[in-house]
Amino acid sequence: MPSGTLLYAQSGGVTAVINATASAVIQAARARRVKVLAGRNGILGALREELIDTSKESLATIRSLAHTPGGAFGSCRVKLKSLDEDRAKYERLLEVFRAHDVRWFLYNGGNDSADTALKVSKLAKEFDYPLTCVGVPKTVDNDLAVTDCCPGFGSAAKYTAVSVREAALDVAAMADTSTKVFVYEAMGRHAGWLAAAAGLAGNRPDEAPHIILFPERPFDEADFFARVKAVVERVGYCVVVASEGIRTADGAFVADAGGGKDSFGHTQLGGVASHLAGRVKDALGYKVHWALPDYLQRSARHLASRTDLEQAMAVGEKAVEYALEGMNSVMPVIVRTSDSPYRWKIEPAPLSKIANKEKTIPASYLRRDGYGITDKARRYLQPLIAGEAPPPYGKDGLPKYVSLKNEMVTPKLDPWNA
Amino acid sequence: MPSGTLLYAQSGGVTAVINATASAVIQAARARRVKVLAGRNGILGALREELIDTSKESLATIRSLAHTPGGAFGSCRVKLKSLDEDRAKYERLLEVFRAHDVRWFLYNGGNDSADTALKVSKLAKEFDYPLTCVGVPKTVDNDLAVTDCCPGFGSAAKYTAVSVREAALDVAAMADTSTKVFVYEAMGRHAGWLAAAAGLAGNRPDEAPHIILFPERPFDEADFFARVKAVVERVGYCVVVASEGIRTADGAFVADAGGGKDSFGHTQLGGVASHLAGRVKDALGYKVHWALPDYLQRSARHLASRTDLEQAMAVGEKAVEYALEGMNSVMPVIVRTSDSPYRWKIEPAPLSKIANKEKTIPASYLRRDGYGITDKARRYLQPLIAGEAPPPYGKDGLPKYVSLKNEMVTPKLDPWNA
Repeated sequence: MPSGTLLYAQSGGVTAVINATASAVIQAARARRVKVLAGRNGILGALREELIDTSKESLATIRSLAHTPGGAFGSCRVKLKSLDEDRAKYERLLEVFRAHDVRWFLYNGGNDSADTALKVSKLAKEFDYPLTCVGVPKTVDNDLAVTDCCPGFGSAAKYTAVSVREAALDVAAMADTSTKVFVYEAMGRHAGWLAAAAGLAGNRPDEAPHIILFPERPFDEADFFARVKAVVERVGYCVVVASEGIRTADGAFVADAGGGKDSFGHTQLGGVASHLAGRVKDALGYKVHWALPDYLQRSARHLASRTDLEQAMAVGEKAVEYALEGMNSVMPVIVRTSDSPYRWKIEPAPLSKIANKEKTIPASYLRRDGYGITDKARRYLQPLIAGEAPPPYGKDGLPKYVSLKNEMVTPKLDPWNA
Repeated sequence: MPSGTLLYAQSGGVTAVINATASAVIQAARARRVKVLAGRNGILGALREELIDTSKESLATIRSLAHTPGGAFGSCRVKLKSLDEDRAKYERLLEVFRAHDVRWFLYNGGNDSADTALKVSKLAKEFDYPLTCVGVPKTVDNDLAVTDCCPGFGSAAKYTAVSVREAALDVAAMADTSTKVFVYEAMGRHAGWLAAAAGLAGNRPDEAPHIILFPERPFDEADFFARVKAVVERVGYCVVVASEGIRTADGAFVADAGGGKDSFGHTQLGGVASHLAGRVKDALGYKVHWALPDYLQRSARHLASRTDLEQAMAVGEKAVEYALEGMNSVMPVIVRTSDSPYRWKIEPAPLSKIANKEKTIPASYLRRDGYGITDKARRYLQPLIAGEAPPPYGKDGLPKYVSLKNEMVTPKLDPWNA
């Protein structure tokens, strides 16, 4: 039994399967008789010394975590700055780690979190504090460098493809006398991966989605209108998928063009889909509808991809393995060894190659006209949404998601004020 | 083998299970060797003499219809007026029926469709044309009179409850540093049934959803703000479910308060959730997010309720039975015989009791403060979302939804111009 404590924390937007990673981390550590604390609300829990004692949870509960969406210990949107700028915070982290004999720190998040883990490991080295830092990948945006894909993406991608296919059948049925244009807004920040996944909903020409708008291509409104009109005239209706981060050629976010104030001076919240829908209505006169699934798309555990779930658990397990082997400043990444049949393995990659980097869609994945995906993109995306992994349902018709006790260990330090 | 043709048509907004009703209708008619034509785009297909020959579809395809969302033959938003005002249209319908020996007309829709079916049956009587008209219930709004519930509602209700539970876990995990208030917009027009179903997502006090806004109760903004603030201060975050049709005490739709024009004079499409989110942000300063699932909620066949599916098929089968028995101007309705264990049966009800009526939520189902549901409502709603009925999935990770050939029979009349 290795001596010391493993600290696990979740960071950034949660996913349908980040708790599956947590479940795998705790199970792998328990198998090696390593104590696991979890930061309450991510890195904030470490700063505030709000540390959850996961040993208070039964094995059954920890197993059930794997089918529960959200972030079981709380996550946070906090970006630590450079070691110089935020030195007091980094030193506080080390102080808390020392007080609780934390020898392994697993930070489950995106590229910001990889950066934080890397910096913590540098400071520990500077202070000669024996600490192994391992980043654990997670993001529905799929924008991490090095790894072939990101846990959380496959499930959100499956949600997107299924939802667009279903909504398109609805629009098709009603188009003769009702909605002609339907706009679906996908998450993804600066990367159009989730919007691209919507492309899997249709395989043949003129199957929905008819138009996908990627942040990787400048948005040209006139060209967009012309395409919508052509599709409606040819197909009878048009299903548009828009990535939240699309921009015009001058770099302005299209989402910012919507919103503003209404005639009462009240805030009008923007959004790409509502803006595009309004513009299409004005310019082309069609009846429009739009959907903004927002958090639904990243928490839809009921529609998780089995591939994604397996990868989320595998990175958790490997992260524990790497940490206990003393592999510092690495992240377990997914390496694809074959498209068809789809095969993958987990390998360690240096955090320095992942921190603060953003992977957008390569040009070869986008159709030449910029409004759809290529076969190459399909080969990449398809396996990531394959397989189902539904949660168990109760007699009440709802998934049986667990809640943890989240009992915290007694603080040993003075409260942190910052 | 009874002589004559059965005409089936879909009307109004489609649902996750209206095709299951269609599947049951066609299978029941085939079993009795009755020919089934389907109106293309609902009643319009009958007016235009665009009649789909369902005998061209294999039994396997018809069976697969039962797990395919949307409206397989096309639906429409067309409300026929009174027999006097729209006499030409009603007479054209009879002309088409006569030309194709239509002796049974099954119209699958809501209260408008019940009205149309009733009027067609009256005109047939006036013209001594032997026709049996049967309404078949369908609506996610659950607002039909007489029937205990409406096919389509249970699945949309399940989608709503599951989605709100999942999104609430997401919000809970992030609330410390991110979104404090999340607003989910539910369909339902003047009836808050779908919003009420969201109440099933939480069972204990302070479990999400914390606030439900019903069209059955006037919306008081100041009171709403005070409640949101209290919930955020007590729980850390607040999940709001708003029915699209909520109104202020003076009868104005809250959704209409949003929208308008932006600073460029462009149309800003409204919506209750985006409006409330903007107002909460202005008034209370919280970070807000909102979701507008729109068509996703009524086409989510992947999350259908088994109860709903069984009822959708049962009303289809019974409609054929009633029609062939010559039970004119009736609708097969769902009668609840027991809450627990949940038991139901199908009985015929006169269309005259259903046409143009709207069933809103009874006062006893709403909490006294008007922001939540009572135990009585839970007893009513719970069984309707019970049981799962997932569609088969392909290796590609997507549900295997079918498309029909939809081959039309050769028209026998002159084209219809109106």
